[in-house]
Amino acid sequence: MSLKEEMMELARQSKQASRLLPRMSTDDKNACLNAMADAIVENAAVIKEANAKDMETGRGMGLSDAMLDRLLLSDERINGMANGLCEVADLPDPLGEILDERKRPTGLMLRKVSTPIGAIVIIYESRPNVTADAAGLCFKSGNSTILRGGKEALNSNQAIACLMVEAGLNTSADFPEHAIQVVPTTERAAIPELLSQIDLIDLCIPRGGEGLIRAVAECSRVPVIKHYKGICCVYIDGKADFDMALEIVVNSKTHRPGVCNAMETLLVDESIAPEFLQRAARALSNKGVELRADEGARTILGDNCKPATAEDWDTEYLDLICAVRVVGGLEEAIEHINEHGSGHTDVIVTDDEAAAARFQNEVDSSTVFWNASTRFTDGGQFGMGAEIGISTDKIGARGPMGLAELTSYKWLGMGDGLIRE
Amino acid sequence: MSLKEEMMELARQSKQASRLLPRMSTDDKNACLNAMADAIVENAAVIKEANAKDMETGRGMGLSDAMLDRLLLSDERINGMANGLCEVADLPDPLGEILDERKRPTGLMLRKVSTPIGAIVIIYESRPNVTADAAGLCFKSGNSTILRGGKEALNSNQAIACLMVEAGLNTSADFPEHAIQVVPTTERAAIPELLSQIDLIDLCIPRGGEGLIRAVAECSRVPVIKHYKGICCVYIDGKADFDMALEIVVNSKTHRPGVCNAMETLLVDESIAPEFLQRAARALSNKGVELRADEGARTILGDNCKPATAEDWDTEYLDLICAVRVVGGLEEAIEHINEHGSGHTDVIVTDDEAAAARFQNEVDSSTVFWNASTRFTDGGQFGMGAEIGISTDKIGARGPMGLAELTSYKWLGMGDGLIRE
Repeated sequence: MSLKEEMMELARQSKQASRLLPRMSTDDKNACLNAMADAIVENAAVIKEANAKDMETGRGMGLSDAMLDRLLLSDERINGMANGLCEVADLPDPLGEILDERKRPTGLMLRKVSTPIGAIVIIYESRPNVTADAAGLCFKSGNSTILRGGKEALNSNQAIACLMVEAGLNTSADFPEHAIQVVPTTERAAIPELLSQIDLIDLCIPRGGEGLIRAVAECSRVPVIKHYKGICCVYIDGKADFDMALEIVVNSKTHRPGVCNAMETLLVDESIAPEFLQRAARALSNKGVELRADEGARTILGDNCKPATAEDWDTEYLDLICAVRVVGGLEEAIEHINEHGSGHTDVIVTDDEAAAARFQNEVDSSTVFWNASTRFTDGGQFGMGAEIGISTDKIGARGPMGLAELTSYKWLGMGDGLIRE
Repeated sequence: MSLKEEMMELARQSKQASRLLPRMSTDDKNACLNAMADAIVENAAVIKEANAKDMETGRGMGLSDAMLDRLLLSDERINGMANGLCEVADLPDPLGEILDERKRPTGLMLRKVSTPIGAIVIIYESRPNVTADAAGLCFKSGNSTILRGGKEALNSNQAIACLMVEAGLNTSADFPEHAIQVVPTTERAAIPELLSQIDLIDLCIPRGGEGLIRAVAECSRVPVIKHYKGICCVYIDGKADFDMALEIVVNSKTHRPGVCNAMETLLVDESIAPEFLQRAARALSNKGVELRADEGARTILGDNCKPATAEDWDTEYLDLICAVRVVGGLEEAIEHINEHGSGHTDVIVTDDEAAAARFQNEVDSSTVFWNASTRFTDGGQFGMGAEIGISTDKIGARGPMGLAELTSYKWLGMGDGLIRE
């Protein structure tokens, strides 16, 4: 079989499995998820053996210590995967929810209900625990998955998926064998082949660095839900409470600087900049944050402060670095964010309700906070229970994606022999 | 300017306009829509003059009479466009609807609200009235539009869009000049250039024949919402009421055979096929429908009935032709539909509630009816007021698309200085 045929067959099997999944009851799906969790714990040795092979290959490839650490599956991480599956089993079933209901004058009764999306391809980088997390979330929401992790993690990913499938098949539920599959090759060309199966694959969710995601979006013929990067901005309005603003700024920047919902740019209204910026610079410096400031901010903070270049406004540092800019008010802040932000999470700190309302309405981002840290954009914080990723797209899911965001919908219509006159 | 630069500029202007649209109040938008309607009626002569040029070009291109008729803008059609805009003004504003609301234990108040999608490209074939319809619906839902009609309709489309923009600008509302634009060139290469602007264009909706839609989907780098074709199937279950089934079959096939929600395939359970098929064949023949039957159906209907080829199951006739197949029950019917249907509208006729529930759950189509004609899949019949098209996609809108289906959503979060610990 050529690679093209192999990928088409993989996609066809996934599509067929996706047509059987809607038959499974919630109880049956949960029984499978719990059985999968048990199998992972009971067969930890099998997973570790496969992982040891991957670690050896990884060392041979010259992976950095950080990369090797991400690849490693310890007992703790294996138990973490199993617990994650049990947690997904405990979450409510997102399918069959009635999203709208209307009786038409013709007598037609319409109901809009949540449904699975279908066959989903998940593409991710090293951490093999994503295999269990993503497959579990997709399975619970009635979707089949084709998983494609890093090439260095193939043995680990296959071992995990294989245990999950066997556990599902060993229950009394009708678990479709191809509901969870791993792309069996590390060939790069497999991805464009797979993502050109527009009649078989319904969605691709890439997770990882911007490079990976851009490459996937570039080659895909099927819909992709993604976020490229998180350039989150915090705007301190003229009517902000300074203490609150400082807390939010420091938390947004330093609580966990390496993640996508960390603040990268601080915008300050010119009316309060002289006083506020001095305090913010001190608070951030105390936490080891390097500032890169525009002219307005440097006038206040002094020439010691590093000047920002045009590039800084579009950079996701993922580090203790913060771009700072003085703006001429709310409108300029909104313009800056819509131009340079990444549509992820942006914040206004203000006591002025009208300013907050305008900011929340006009900032075109998936999440817009008023008087809260950027760090709250997260499936867990949103009460979604588990998260498969965050979307900055506007078609389909936007913002954190939990089980409900892995569903589509259909219209059901009921008549008593209705015809159109 | 090169074509690439020209398209980029068009997209940039559209994106900028889309950022101003959320500032407009519902009243302001409605005032613009009504002013646009007035302008179209008052300047009918301008539209007809532009249309006369197009008609002349069309004749020169050797367009068929049917094509020329679609291109023609009579007074009646011009009034129809204006009335359409007034109707859109009367519809409720789809923006700012609270889709979800939750207070988290942290104190974070979350609200999921409907928002515009952004900048939308609409690609369509001859009928120039789509220009006003599509631009009006997108404008009301807070989206900017870039319109690309048939090359033979460019003058008509530009005249209509120009009147709408001028009318908007002449109101006291802050109508953004570039909220409605027409691609100013008929060059084919303009489309792929426009649809590669992933940072500026949020969505493309192609409307027209399958060839046009496949070409757009093939070249687009931005999300596309579409339906390729309507192969709607009606399944007559073993427990169907025959009189009801006959009425639904005849209505689905013959009420308006040239549209996407007409039935193309009739599936009949083998247990009732001998009796039902005879009656159905008579009723359909009386309406001039040609049947193309599988072996099972021909055994019953006789050799006079034309045999179906493998191709028939995948064909959208848009004509008085109907493929007929005898199936071994519900499961085979569902399999046939998921394999050969187009995910548009499928129907089960039965008195068996459990069979109906299973059919509605497992048929993977945007609309699934129980005891109703396929012909009900339509924005008007669904109570959407107006329709920009029908989607058989599963990411974003699915089924008929009205104003609500032209929206996305964002999460608004409110705190009182909340930070993550």
